[in-house]
Amino acid sequence: MSDSTATQAEVKSQKRTLAVIDCDVHIQPVSYDEIKAYMRQPFRDMFNLFKGRGIFDNPLGRTTIKGNTPSGGPIASDPNHLREQLIKPNNIETAILSPWIYADFFSDPDFKAEINAAFNSWVHDKWLNSKVNYDGVFKASITVSHQDPNLAVKEIERWAGHPDFVQVYLDSGSRAPLGQRQYWPIYEACERYGLPLAIHVGTDGLGGNSRFTTGFPNRYVEWLTLVPCNFQAHLVSFLTEGVFERFPGLRMVLLEGGTFWLPGMLWRLDALYKSFRFEIPWVKKLPSLYVKDHIRFGTQPMHRPDNDEHFRYLLEVIDAENIMMFSSDYPHFDTDVAAEIFPRNISDQMKNKIFYENAKAFYNL
Amino acid sequence: MSDSTATQAEVKSQKRTLAVIDCDVHIQPVSYDEIKAYMRQPFRDMFNLFKGRGIFDNPLGRTTIKGNTPSGGPIASDPNHLREQLIKPNNIETAILSPWIYADFFSDPDFKAEINAAFNSWVHDKWLNSKVNYDGVFKASITVSHQDPNLAVKEIERWAGHPDFVQVYLDSGSRAPLGQRQYWPIYEACERYGLPLAIHVGTDGLGGNSRFTTGFPNRYVEWLTLVPCNFQAHLVSFLTEGVFERFPGLRMVLLEGGTFWLPGMLWRLDALYKSFRFEIPWVKKLPSLYVKDHIRFGTQPMHRPDNDEHFRYLLEVIDAENIMMFSSDYPHFDTDVAAEIFPRNISDQMKNKIFYENAKAFYNL
Repeated sequence: MSDSTATQAEVKSQKRTLAVIDCDVHIQPVSYDEIKAYMRQPFRDMFNLFKGRGIFDNPLGRTTIKGNTPSGGPIASDPNHLREQLIKPNNIETAILSPWIYADFFSDPDFKAEINAAFNSWVHDKWLNSKVNYDGVFKASITVSHQDPNLAVKEIERWAGHPDFVQVYLDSGSRAPLGQRQYWPIYEACERYGLPLAIHVGTDGLGGNSRFTTGFPNRYVEWLTLVPCNFQAHLVSFLTEGVFERFPGLRMVLLEGGTFWLPGMLWRLDALYKSFRFEIPWVKKLPSLYVKDHIRFGTQPMHRPDNDEHFRYLLEVIDAENIMMFSSDYPHFDTDVAAEIFPRNISDQMKNKIFYENAKAFYNL
Repeated sequence: MSDSTATQAEVKSQKRTLAVIDCDVHIQPVSYDEIKAYMRQPFRDMFNLFKGRGIFDNPLGRTTIKGNTPSGGPIASDPNHLREQLIKPNNIETAILSPWIYADFFSDPDFKAEINAAFNSWVHDKWLNSKVNYDGVFKASITVSHQDPNLAVKEIERWAGHPDFVQVYLDSGSRAPLGQRQYWPIYEACERYGLPLAIHVGTDGLGGNSRFTTGFPNRYVEWLTLVPCNFQAHLVSFLTEGVFERFPGLRMVLLEGGTFWLPGMLWRLDALYKSFRFEIPWVKKLPSLYVKDHIRFGTQPMHRPDNDEHFRYLLEVIDAENIMMFSSDYPHFDTDVAAEIFPRNISDQMKNKIFYENAKAFYNL
């Protein structure tokens, strides 16, 4: 939740006027046995190993929205309850469903692929069937792992063409910067099927992945503060490897990795590009210029400073109006509520673009 | 060099009025045999191994300021020439000398300590003697390595009390985040002797150090763009480990690691502190509040965007006036010239503090 100073009246007024597309809504099964039911052996038994992410599990628990759904499962496991708790009160027209599975914690590429495939099948059967998704409010992600790009492509091909699977989803935890060419078959498939690529915080530096900091951080608060650095590394990798020159139709959204590091990072990269473009001749223009055409950023977690003016400065500098898309990250401890993330005096145009228009265009909704 | 739009007249006017303290001036020997002469065996012979940093050496070479000094050595090896080329034209009252040695590339803590000790002895004999430093313009760094904190403390104790050694200097390349408690003996010694701690870009992720990105970056431009992420990790480590509560007299300057990431990082850390302070009960206030009291940032490399207004926004948001100290990084390819780093209409007060007053207070000059 942001440190909001919005008044009740302001909140109500925004609720009345704004239609919202929420780009990051996590869903989970009542029990992970539901997911395992889709797995083949020996993976079904191996999945018993799954005990969360090991170190750097959130010490506040998996969600702050506690309690069960009326049907008896954990939060975000019941489509009807999710409609009541999230969709209706926030005037959400479309919810882009994100997985709640950490396949990338593991090390075996076949195991990872099986976990993702099972999760995607479960999403398809439980959330996208016509009885549950009668109005099309739910759009879903094709969750894949980076480690074996060919298996990822196979999984993309299983679902591409389904009208409600609207993006390919990668965990930002990885073994190498994600712009590197070994991962390009995934991006080629995204472009071929017109599916945007989402990269979302997950198992960064954990399990079978490479660390993203010098040595281990000591605590969750440190790990979570630093995750945006991993996003910076991925983004710099995409930009310097020339991924958007190679795949001009590729569009990408970065979720939960922050945005206010953009000025420091892009000003630096643009300046260094002028000195070192001979290293990366396939990059045809200032790296920052690729951002607006190809990349969007989820808003959550929207951390507001005490000084609203400083916050507005940063929104202007990063061109928030054109690159941000609202995301709640429901139902995690730091879920953002659409009507509360901005201070007063943010223009209606900016709000309309961030809460609605940018995502509508990005996902071709 | 910054992308300056300053006019010649503006440059000349600033030169006339501003006294400058330059917090990052690198010096090197005519030949590294000068340094080796101070080493004991077997380290003197082992130092023949030194071939730069391995991968991620700057493909533009060690300096952009090419050519030799009139006395025949490489640039920055001759105190008289350095006075002519840097000190006089830029009205520099004090130059804080930084090492040009990469002991932290290696893995053996005794070897590292010997390299640093030899370099410090060479600095003392060549740059701080009364014939060369007759006016006290040169102040120097006690270069140490993090890996064996007890050896670092021993080296600090060799020089503490010398009026011209004004700080302890650590490479930001390391094996773990530098705020962790295994390194605290170094900070205890800094506090005990009233010596600020400088942390400077060097062997980040190279040689015997831990990588600071997920997997290896592929090229120098990528490595150099991402180095600020390692600084963020170190700073978050200092703040979450409570180093400034444990050593309230400790002051620290971060050199070459950027500053414009501060809003994103500090807003995030402050917000997460509110949720997770139970993990770090020794942190007594919002982490961002430690910055102004304890931490300064070198200006170089000062990357300016096209939009001067955006640049000014960021200077205001990060409180540049109170936390920045001018540094040129002479004589590297991206040396900043004092009169060129800022656009017009930066207040005289801000300039005076950044170019002079902040460093004067920080180093008790």
